Amino acid sequence: MFKAAAFACEDATTPLHAFTINRRDPGPRDVEIEILFCGVCHSDLHTARGEWGNTMYPAVPGHEIVGRVNRVGSEVSAFKTGDTVGVGCIVDSCRACASCAEGLEQFCENGMTGTYNAPDTKMGEGAHTFGGYSSHVVVDDRYVLRIPASLDLAAAAPLLCAGITTYSPLRHWKAGPGKSVGIVGLGGLGHMGVKIAHAMGAHVTMITTSPDKAEDARKLGADAVIISKDAAQMAAASRSLDLIIDCVAADHDINAYLNLLKRDGALVQVGAPEKPLSVSAFSLIPGRRTFAGSMIGGIAETQEMLDFCAEHGIASDIEMIDMDEINEAYERMLKSDVRYRFVIDMATMPKVG
Amino acid sequence: MFKAAAFACEDATTPLHAFTINRRDPGPRDVEIEILFCGVCHSDLHTARGEWGNTMYPAVPGHEIVGRVNRVGSEVSAFKTGDTVGVGCIVDSCRACASCAEGLEQFCENGMTGTYNAPDTKMGEGAHTFGGYSSHVVVDDRYVLRIPASLDLAAAAPLLCAGITTYSPLRHWKAGPGKSVGIVGLGGLGHMGVKIAHAMGAHVTMITTSPDKAEDARKLGADAVIISKDAAQMAAASRSLDLIIDCVAADHDINAYLNLLKRDGALVQVGAPEKPLSVSAFSLIPGRRTFAGSMIGGIAETQEMLDFCAEHGIASDIEMIDMDEINEAYERMLKSDVRYRFVIDMATMPKVG
Repeated sequence: MFKAAAFACEDATTPLHAFTINRRDPGPRDVEIEILFCGVCHSDLHTARGEWGNTMYPAVPGHEIVGRVNRVGSEVSAFKTGDTVGVGCIVDSCRACASCAEGLEQFCENGMTGTYNAPDTKMGEGAHTFGGYSSHVVVDDRYVLRIPASLDLAAAAPLLCAGITTYSPLRHWKAGPGKSVGIVGLGGLGHMGVKIAHAMGAHVTMITTSPDKAEDARKLGADAVIISKDAAQMAAASRSLDLIIDCVAADHDINAYLNLLKRDGALVQVGAPEKPLSVSAFSLIPGRRTFAGSMIGGIAETQEMLDFCAEHGIASDIEMIDMDEINEAYERMLKSDVRYRFVIDMATMPKVG
Repeated sequence: MFKAAAFACEDATTPLHAFTINRRDPGPRDVEIEILFCGVCHSDLHTARGEWGNTMYPAVPGHEIVGRVNRVGSEVSAFKTGDTVGVGCIVDSCRACASCAEGLEQFCENGMTGTYNAPDTKMGEGAHTFGGYSSHVVVDDRYVLRIPASLDLAAAAPLLCAGITTYSPLRHWKAGPGKSVGIVGLGGLGHMGVKIAHAMGAHVTMITTSPDKAEDARKLGADAVIISKDAAQMAAASRSLDLIIDCVAADHDINAYLNLLKRDGALVQVGAPEKPLSVSAFSLIPGRRTFAGSMIGGIAETQEMLDFCAEHGIASDIEMIDMDEINEAYERMLKSDVRYRFVIDMATMPKVG
C-alpha cells in the first residue's frame, strides 16, 4: 500500500477537500498510473452529494482519468512505464459471464466494479473504490485504455465517460452516412454526441431548449438545430430522424422527441432522469418505434472510440480547473455554466502532507 | 353500387342493429367477397362506442374477415369466384411511399385505409369504409389474402388482426429456437401470441394476473407461467427473457415487465393503453433494453402468417355468435369473458329487407 493525495468528501453536505487515501501496491497484472487530468462528470456530483442514496463515504469521485504509467506488475505486457493511458468508469468485472465474454463489461451480470463508490475487494473487506480526483490510481491492465498520441491529454479525459456514453449507442444503432441522427441536450454528453455522430458521417440535428446554443451546435458539427420549445419547428421535423440520443437527465416530454423518429427509429436514453418518463403507446406503435437505454461502453469499444476520436481529430471542449475549484465547478455545472466539460489539472493537487 | 346487409350503430350510445349499406360494384382490380365469418376485435368496440373520439357514423366495425369470392374485376388474376379469402385491417394504402414499397402498408406514410372508419374515396366525397359486420365487402385485390385450405374458416378469421398483430413483432424481433419469449395478457391477442411463439420454436412464458389462466396457457403452448401479482415469481424471472409481447391495453406497471428482460431484450407493446405508461430510465439503461411498439403487419407478412398457421395447424380458439348477439358479446368482452375470440357466423345476418 502507498499513500496518494485525493479530494474527498465525508458526507453528503460537506465540500470536497484535500484528503489522503491508500492505494494498493501493483500486483502482477496491475498498472500504477500517475493521474494528469480528470474530467468532471455529473455522476461525480450525484455521488458526492449522496443523491442516488448509495454513496459510501469518504467519497473520491472521478472516472474520466488520463495519466502516465508509473510502474507495471510483472505480468503486464501491454503497458510500460511512461505510456499515456486512460481509465473510464470500469476498473473490474467478473470476466466470466456472457456480457464480459462479449466485451460488454458495463453489463457484467455479476456487477462491474465502478471506478469509484464500488466495493473494492482488492483493498479488503468493507473497502470501496476511490476515483480519479487523486494523484495516483492502480488498475488491472484489462481495464486500462491506451490514449493515442495525437490526442490532447486534457481534452481526451472526458472521452472516457461522455465520449463512450454517446459513441456506444451511435455504433450500436448504426449511425453513419445516410442516417439522420438527433442529439437532445447540448452539455457534456450532447456535445460529444454531435462531434462523434458528425465524424461517423451522419446528418446531425441538435435538439435543444436554448436558442443561444444553436451557433455552438453548428460549430461542433450539427447540420441542423431544432429549438424544442418551438412547436412549429418540432412539428416540421416530425418523422425525420432515424436515431435520437437523448442526453437529458432532467424530466422531459419524451413523446415530443419520439414523434421526431421515422418508422423503425430509435430514441436512446443516456441521460438518466430520476423520475419515470411518461411514454404513450401511441408514440411507439404506429411507427414501430423504439425507446431504449444505453450505458457507457465496454473496454474494447472504449479503445475503439479513443482510436476513432484520434483518427477524426476530435475530443472534448473543456474548461480546465484547479483541484481546489471543484466545489465551485459543481455549482456552475448545476447551472449548465460550462462549455462543455470541466477537467481538473492534477498538477494542482496538493501533495500528500 | 349494390345493397349489402350490415350491423351498424349511428352514435356512441345506441346498440348495433340491422342496417343496409351500399357497396361499390367491383372495378377492374376489385374482389367482391361474400363474408362467411368475422372476428370481434376490441377495436370494434372502441370504434362503435366512439371511445377514440374519431368515429364516423354510421359505424360498421369488423376487420377479421373470412369469406368466399363472388366475382372479380377484369384485371384480377390472383383470385377467382369460389376462392376462400380473408381481409384484415387494411383495404388500401398509397402504394408509393417507402413503407408501401417495403410491404409495410400498415405504416403507409400517406395513411393506410382502414377496413372500417376510414375515408373511402372510392365511394365518393365524405364516405367512409364499412367493415366486416356485413354480408359482402369489395376490396382491391392487392389487399386480399388467401386462406389456406387446411384452416378452419371461422377460427382463421381472428388471425387477420389478432394473429398478425402478434406474429409480426415475433418475427421482427426474431423469436425462435433458443429464444425466451414472454407474452403478457391472455386474451385475444395473447392466446395467439402463445400459439405462434410456440410454433416458432421459442421457449414461451405466459405472464398473467390470473392464476386460473395458468392451465389454459400451458394447453395453448406456454412452457412456463408467471403470475404477475406474485412478487416472488416476478423476482425469480428477473433478466430471463429475450423478448416480451405485451398485449395489455389497460394501464399497468411496465417497469415490472421490463425487468424480466435480459440485456438487449425488447418489450414490444401491441396492446394500446389509453394513458401514457410510466417508464424508468433505470429499467432501460443498465441492460440496454428496448421498449417498442408494433402495429398489425403488412399484406405480404399477413399472407406469410396465414401460411405459417396452416403449416403448424394453429388458429384462434373461438366462440361463435350470431350477428344479433354482438352487443351482448361486447359486454362479455369488457369482462374478459371469452376464450379467446368471438367470431360472428355471417349466415345469421338478417337479409337486406
